[in-house]
Amino acid sequence: MTTALPAPNSESVSSDTPLVGIIMGSQSDLKVMTAAAELLRQFGVPYELTLVSAHRTPHRLVEYAETARKRGLRVLIAGGGGAAHLPGMVASFTTLPVIGVPINSATSIHGLDSILSMLQMPAGVPVATVALDGAPNAAVLATQILALSNARLQDALEKYRTSLKDKVMRTIEELRKGGLSDD
Amino acid sequence: MTTALPAPNSESVSSDTPLVGIIMGSQSDLKVMTAAAELLRQFGVPYELTLVSAHRTPHRLVEYAETARKRGLRVLIAGGGGAAHLPGMVASFTTLPVIGVPINSATSIHGLDSILSMLQMPAGVPVATVALDGAPNAAVLATQILALSNARLQDALEKYRTSLKDKVMRTIEELRKGGLSDD
Amino acid sequence: MTTALPAPNSESVSSDTPLVGIIMGSQSDLKVMTAAAELLRQFGVPYELTLVSAHRTPHRLVEYAETARKRGLRVLIAGGGGAAHLPGMVASFTTLPVIGVPINSATSIHGLDSILSMLQMPAGVPVATVALDGAPNAAVLATQILALSNARLQDALEKYRTSLKDKVMRTIEELRKGGLSDD
Amino acid sequence: MTTALPAPNSESVSSDTPLVGIIMGSQSDLKVMTAAAELLRQFGVPYELTLVSAHRTPHRLVEYAETARKRGLRVLIAGGGGAAHLPGMVASFTTLPVIGVPINSATSIHGLDSILSMLQMPAGVPVATVALDGAPNAAVLATQILALSNARLQDALEKYRTSLKDKVMRTIEELRKGGLSDD
Amino acid sequence: MTTALPAPNSESVSSDTPLVGIIMGSQSDLKVMTAAAELLRQFGVPYELTLVSAHRTPHRLVEYAETARKRGLRVLIAGGGGAAHLPGMVASFTTLPVIGVPINSATSIHGLDSILSMLQMPAGVPVATVALDGAPNAAVLATQILALSNARLQDALEKYRTSLKDKVMRTIEELRKGGLSDD
Amino acid sequence: MTTALPAPNSESVSSDTPLVGIIMGSQSDLKVMTAAAELLRQFGVPYELTLVSAHRTPHRLVEYAETARKRGLRVLIAGGGGAAHLPGMVASFTTLPVIGVPINSATSIHGLDSILSMLQMPAGVPVATVALDGAPNAAVLATQILALSNARLQDALEKYRTSLKDKVMRTIEELRKGGLSDD
Amino acid sequence: MTTALPAPNSESVSSDTPLVGIIMGSQSDLKVMTAAAELLRQFGVPYELTLVSAHRTPHRLVEYAETARKRGLRVLIAGGGGAAHLPGMVASFTTLPVIGVPINSATSIHGLDSILSMLQMPAGVPVATVALDGAPNAAVLATQILALSNARLQDALEKYRTSLKDKVMRTIEELRKGGLSDD
Amino acid sequence: MTTALPAPNSESVSSDTPLVGIIMGSQSDLKVMTAAAELLRQFGVPYELTLVSAHRTPHRLVEYAETARKRGLRVLIAGGGGAAHLPGMVASFTTLPVIGVPINSATSIHGLDSILSMLQMPAGVPVATVALDGAPNAAVLATQILALSNARLQDALEKYRTSLKDKVMRTIEELRKGGLSDD
Repeated sequence: MTTALPAPNSESVSSDTPLVGIIMGSQSDLKVMTAAAELLRQFGVPYELTLVSAHRTPHRLVEYAETARKRGLRVLIAGGGGAAHLPGMVASFTTLPVIGVPINSATSIHGLDSILSMLQMPAGVPVATVALDGAPNAAVLATQILALSNARLQDALEKYRTSLKDKVMRTIEELRKGGLSDD
Repeated sequence: MTTALPAPNSESVSSDTPLVGIIMGSQSDLKVMTAAAELLRQFGVPYELTLVSAHRTPHRLVEYAETARKRGLRVLIAGGGGAAHLPGMVASFTTLPVIGVPINSATSIHGLDSILSMLQMPAGVPVATVALDGAPNAAVLATQILALSNARLQDALEKYRTSLKDKVMRTIEELRKGGLSDD
Repeated sequence: MTTALPAPNSESVSSDTPLVGIIMGSQSDLKVMTAAAELLRQFGVPYELTLVSAHRTPHRLVEYAETARKRGLRVLIAGGGGAAHLPGMVASFTTLPVIGVPINSATSIHGLDSILSMLQMPAGVPVATVALDGAPNAAVLATQILALSNARLQDALEKYRTSLKDKVMRTIEELRKGGLSDD
Repeated sequence: MTTALPAPNSESVSSDTPLVGIIMGSQSDLKVMTAAAELLRQFGVPYELTLVSAHRTPHRLVEYAETARKRGLRVLIAGGGGAAHLPGMVASFTTLPVIGVPINSATSIHGLDSILSMLQMPAGVPVATVALDGAPNAAVLATQILALSNARLQDALEKYRTSLKDKVMRTIEELRKGGLSDD
Repeated sequence: MTTALPAPNSESVSSDTPLVGIIMGSQSDLKVMTAAAELLRQFGVPYELTLVSAHRTPHRLVEYAETARKRGLRVLIAGGGGAAHLPGMVASFTTLPVIGVPINSATSIHGLDSILSMLQMPAGVPVATVALDGAPNAAVLATQILALSNARLQDALEKYRTSLKDKVMRTIEELRKGGLSDD
Repeated sequence: MTTALPAPNSESVSSDTPLVGIIMGSQSDLKVMTAAAELLRQFGVPYELTLVSAHRTPHRLVEYAETARKRGLRVLIAGGGGAAHLPGMVASFTTLPVIGVPINSATSIHGLDSILSMLQMPAGVPVATVALDGAPNAAVLATQILALSNARLQDALEKYRTSLKDKVMRTIEELRKGGLSDD
Repeated sequence: MTTALPAPNSESVSSDTPLVGIIMGSQSDLKVMTAAAELLRQFGVPYELTLVSAHRTPHRLVEYAETARKRGLRVLIAGGGGAAHLPGMVASFTTLPVIGVPINSATSIHGLDSILSMLQMPAGVPVATVALDGAPNAAVLATQILALSNARLQDALEKYRTSLKDKVMRTIEELRKGGLSDD
Repeated sequence: MTTALPAPNSESVSSDTPLVGIIMGSQSDLKVMTAAAELLRQFGVPYELTLVSAHRTPHRLVEYAETARKRGLRVLIAGGGGAAHLPGMVASFTTLPVIGVPINSATSIHGLDSILSMLQMPAGVPVATVALDGAPNAAVLATQILALSNARLQDALEKYRTSLKDKVMRTIEELRKGGLSDD
């Protein structure tokens, strides 16, 4: 798998074979799901992003899921709202790890419908569900999985964690200077 | 469609081409779903009952849904629990009416997961969802649909309605005799 | 039933006897429910749309439901919010298929009240419940039912499904051109 | 109204015209609803108890609700589970106060369906909803309403309240004697 | 009680002894609860409206509830949000009928907290709970209770019901004229 | 406050002035709430345990809450189910810290009613709510509060924490010996 | 502990050793949590306010919790949204009382996730959970705890309670003058 | 990583360095979590299973999570009920993929508390949450992740999928023979 990842000096992510497939059922999901793409780009993980609708393009779903491994994909990220069948059905047609991103929307029951439609999969066919609208965490989880056999990604993850911590520490410093805190 | 229905003097339902397909994902759903079969049998509606697992036999799902109309089926009843994708995915592969029966179970969130996984379908691909564990109502609804072009079934439905009313009235009479009521 | 449907050369839907009755309890439901009318019009299904309030015009409910079949209606679509009794009570007075559209509103418990008030009908009297605010799916389901004995409607449904798929494919093409996807 | 109430020396409740009508949709609701009857009997409030199914005997519902006032009833108590339409629909056909008792059951969503189906009535047609399986409180509320113009019932309510308090005080005394408390 | 009600020729409601006490815990509840006052005024039911906070003025709660009957009040309407203890605690200090109006707010769990805090009262002390933000229905219910011994109020209620029906019928007529309906 | 606590050599807890008042509304709450008493006894915190029903003995509630501080109580623990008003109303009559223990029961909405009735208190009058049926944690929290000015209790808490850890470690050791773990 | 509190003549709160630590996981929580700081300042309770992220600065969490007591803190207030682990994990590393403030947000399930993540702690490690977004009540509860051994804080609390009552009484007076009430 | 996996001819799983760490907070979680161990054993994935309590052994949690990668673990599976902080906190101390198994229990809010406590993690620190009590799916997901760089595990997964399908097909055959189906 190491060879499939971009060489250290590669600047252009898009010339590489995608390792992560980001899919969603509808254009309206893009505003949530592009955050996953942005984070993967930041980590240097080649990805593809496209629409696969479980209910409007079910044959495309079957084909996408069944050819995913052969096309070089290693992890699939599937987002959806309402009766969100996309991640679970994709998982039925492949044994690649499938990460589900439940998406909230105007006609959703506060996201509970999409959460439960993804999470409550029967024994044998898991969907790794992340938080409501949690596309960034889907990207982190996909990278954590890929990093198990890729040292560069492991470095990228450690740096990302450090950057998260640093951002908190900077806010703490601002709070201290601003007199909001007494210590 | 009329010819597909059993002739009025036919006693044997099973010799006819099934008009209703009752499917479910797991053997454990049988205890709920057989009630649909029993009621269809009572109405004289030829049916078939089998297992189709969206997650463990996804290709069978595709084939079942795509051939359903050609095999003479007119209405599909699909039951399931948890992340119940079966009715929604079947509906993606056919334009026959699909009735969903959400099923409660030990690891369900009080049935809310199966209800929302069926009900909250996106625009274009409806699932006619009935009550939790409501297999009998799925059979009644299927028969109401078939009865639109079959007078015998319409008669059967009216008699069924009358029998429901009669049962209530008999209980009322028992209550009256038993002295529980003062009027 | 075939004769009740518009002749193939008929352009004007409104001159035909309605096959679908779309009803709702309040003027405020119109903003959701007109989507069902628009889709039926697109399918060429004659329909009527009016108000029937279970709680403010209960006698009208009884009359509407009891005369529906005689007036030529084949499927009823009833929308409502909160304690949404309209579809269930209509179903009590007729054996026509009744489709329920739960509607969300400002004083609703995120639509759970209207969903459960429609869905959880007792054995014998089903309501075919669709998604929250899912009026378009009610129209599709009604047309799927009518299409069982009408080839023209079956064609219309297939074209509709194709148009849904085509719209997804066009978005995919736009994504590809826009460089959002790497494949 | 005073004359409709039993004279102070009347021992036999059943010979009086019922003031409260206790209704429910199904025989299975009896195990909850008889508690309302028992408490009304204890208060000396004449009542009737019978079955009225909104979905299986809808015409009986209309007749029951429309004739209730003329028959001397002053308050109606209606219990039900699931999509519990009985109290709301009865309230649509009468302006008598209607008290709703939501009932839990095996196929209920923990009683939320019956609670919301009763509680969330539209403006103009209230249902006075009490607690899940709260039939005793329906009886107390009905008696509180009747007691507004009946001094004997007011006395009975005060004695009931005192008995509730006395029962608590006796348990406190037992706790004290049993050494469970340190004071 | 009849004498406490305004004489038929009385125009001024405010000169009469209030029969209904409308209370709430906070000024922010006024926007919901004034609808109850407006409807009572329309029915000609003398009322009072004030603040009683269960948590910030608990002694006022005790005094208000304990003196309510002596001051001539016949029905209490109590609104509140969140952990809404006002109606239940008022009901603990009086045997007058208490109607609870659960109120939604920014920090509420979609109103479920206020609904359940009012509805789920223990046996012996009922709160007649109406819909979320359902202040108008509290007024109707209070009037239905008072109308049991007041013919003028009964007339007012019947006219109100007719006006509700007429409003629906006028909307139906507008729909018919507007061409939205095909019949 | 130090003097109110038992002297180090005191064996008998019950001879001391109670520092913690454990109250509940009904005898049926005892099976949950005695766990708080047992843990306080183990910590050597003098307590009293009794019944105070918000709805059946409201005057006792007022008196209990208003005299609590003078009688030497420092923390109150109040348990209840359903519309659990006890902790919130007690908190309205005292400024002592009040800990609420929501209790599940047969007619509860899975405990959500009692949780929300306690938790969602308005600004100014907090209830320190612990887990559903979490009486032991109420005792620990009360002791943590008292321990702020009592070194012996602080020692007892540290030992309790150690005992919790030790129990986990012993189970780990058993797992290791039993061969369930591979390390 | 008395010496740790500001001397009566001290005007400057910030020069004193903080007794309450207010922590939260993210800058976005500040808009809710500063209300706790403001109220503590009003009560004259020295506090500190800073960020501690359970997930992004977990080592800081351990250090903060383990050194809290030694640094003079007596009560910790921890706010958070979503999977809000901060108060529970802080409670695992200290035996100081920990108050949890669940915070609602755009991707929260109406705050239920943060409420349940704080409230449902296992036996032995309590979190004193207050209302959703209830930072002011966290400050009141912290002060109630500190006031057990500090007479000045007890006075401040009593005055605060009086001010809450006075505000209600002033609104009542305005209502009376404004003619909204009839009494 | 390939070398860390058992050689093809290895029969004894336990002699290998564990690749998956299965942890849980309490002995009572074992009845759910051992299903993950059994499935990993069946797949031939070396694992360890032990207790790590976030709240009772927090230092052990830190140590376990921080040393996991160095000890050779590649995926962590963490189960828990109620306020289930274990998977999220472990994920804060490592960048290994962490799979969360929410566990239902007697004092849980139907598992919603444990689901939301795991799922709703903030951006940056994902937990791959599976179904309620879904320990087998945690094992499948862990194996899917490991199989990305291990052909033998990929084979094992494919065989497992086939076995799931075969079981469904056998049940279908039994149904057919038993006459339950009419086709």
